[in-house]
Amino acid sequence: MSQFDARLKETAESVNVALDALLPRPQGPEARLVEAMRYAALGAGKRLRPFFTIEAGRIFDADEGHLLRAACAIECVHTYSLIHDDLPCMDDDDLRRGRPTLHRAFDEATALLAGDALQTFAFEALADPATHPDPQMRCLLITGLAKASGAVGMVAGQVADMAGQEIGSDLIAVTRMNRLKTGALINFSVDAGAFIGCASEAEKTALSRYAHDVGLAFQMVDDILDAEGAVRDTGKAVGKDKDRGKANFVTVLGVEATRERVGMLAAQAKRHLALFGPRARVLLDAVDFVVQRRH
Amino acid sequence: MSQFDARLKETAESVNVALDALLPRPQGPEARLVEAMRYAALGAGKRLRPFFTIEAGRIFDADEGHLLRAACAIECVHTYSLIHDDLPCMDDDDLRRGRPTLHRAFDEATALLAGDALQTFAFEALADPATHPDPQMRCLLITGLAKASGAVGMVAGQVADMAGQEIGSDLIAVTRMNRLKTGALINFSVDAGAFIGCASEAEKTALSRYAHDVGLAFQMVDDILDAEGAVRDTGKAVGKDKDRGKANFVTVLGVEATRERVGMLAAQAKRHLALFGPRARVLLDAVDFVVQRRH
Repeated sequence: MSQFDARLKETAESVNVALDALLPRPQGPEARLVEAMRYAALGAGKRLRPFFTIEAGRIFDADEGHLLRAACAIECVHTYSLIHDDLPCMDDDDLRRGRPTLHRAFDEATALLAGDALQTFAFEALADPATHPDPQMRCLLITGLAKASGAVGMVAGQVADMAGQEIGSDLIAVTRMNRLKTGALINFSVDAGAFIGCASEAEKTALSRYAHDVGLAFQMVDDILDAEGAVRDTGKAVGKDKDRGKANFVTVLGVEATRERVGMLAAQAKRHLALFGPRARVLLDAVDFVVQRRH
Repeated sequence: MSQFDARLKETAESVNVALDALLPRPQGPEARLVEAMRYAALGAGKRLRPFFTIEAGRIFDADEGHLLRAACAIECVHTYSLIHDDLPCMDDDDLRRGRPTLHRAFDEATALLAGDALQTFAFEALADPATHPDPQMRCLLITGLAKASGAVGMVAGQVADMAGQEIGSDLIAVTRMNRLKTGALINFSVDAGAFIGCASEAEKTALSRYAHDVGLAFQMVDDILDAEGAVRDTGKAVGKDKDRGKANFVTVLGVEATRERVGMLAAQAKRHLALFGPRARVLLDAVDFVVQRRH
């Protein structure tokens, strides 16, 4: 295992331990709801968003406990979005992270409500003084997470994705959809680390541009894997977008041109980190990880 | 129209104007999402939760603008819960506030996502400095709203309601379910006004007890209306709980005993307000309104 892979794995384990401690425990008549929240949140995810928050914050020697809590809140929002995305009225998926999706493992109503409660929990966790002693910082994180994930962020991207052809199948429409659906939250993951690390404006801008390019590259790789990957590698159904007539980078550009753009974005993402010198080594390696991943 | 009815109507109008100004405007490819959010949030609700926040705050001469924003956030959470509650995998309802439910007027995926985005929006609105200049207060409101509406509050109540008989059909189980499903958010509506008004501990306790009793009475009246009301009055389907084999106060106690308890709770709720003298006149009248309402 490379040094980077070990570090990613270590962060994922810290996030799992922290989420396990943070989330409510199943008890009483509604134990099933909390079991569902935990089933979804404690699955075998890569924890890439938490990783970005923590590693961006480490550039500035930010408090690890604060970073970890913010990272967990972001992961709860990501998890809730996956749960709702998988529901029959949305993508109607059976597999997620190599296991039955939440509504398959439990039932639709429980999945709907567990997603709702995970979203609520994310904001509750951020508002807690344990996330940061300064309430101004907590409000900043809450505002950032809400904007990235709400009606002008992630949820707008989900709508655009559902609407498919109506919204357009050209490169501009596909790029815009991805900026909203996955880009906004990846961007906030990096921004949150910069906020907590009290980065300067120039540093925040550099990290935000890095996040923009990495987020887009991440989605392009996702589309390549969807077109070429195997269920065994990705842990979810593949070839879905094409089967559903949905536009994505590969359906619009083809695999080769998409791969080329991934390379350009990766190089550009790395250039944004020049400002930080060797302190940004892990975020540099993260670019290669995102580009080379097989799932 | 009584003085109280006029005041309730006036507050509802202020809330509608404020929500209309606060919510995003439909534009661009995702206009439909925002249209759906607005359809649901700007319907003809009684705005009882906002009314409680505003009137509780008025006891302490709290800033009307702050109260109104907190009230709107609470109403967004209430609205999101109604949207998700009405979905086919939950109650599968066609009518709400006298109009087609959101998934009937739009579609299921849009309703799911509009509910999600309304929840996000509530926290975004609370975190904004316009809600209160003190970030500590904003965090307090966010924590309170999250606890009241999440996995140990409203959503737990929805799970209990869905689970029906499994969870128990005795008075204790029904009371507990209602405390969670509607009581917790009504309680927070009153608490939010007390927080923003910087009420003393004794005043907060008195208002919290008032909210507890009013919330329970409110739900009992709902159950009586469900058993006896007409679609014309309630704006939604009636007799649903019995048809679905769901336990509620009327199925457990019968109409007469439920009515008797409503009277006892109303008297008790009023006693908690004694502390405030004539300043609590509107909240006193609100008890009669809740008890006597026909929809």
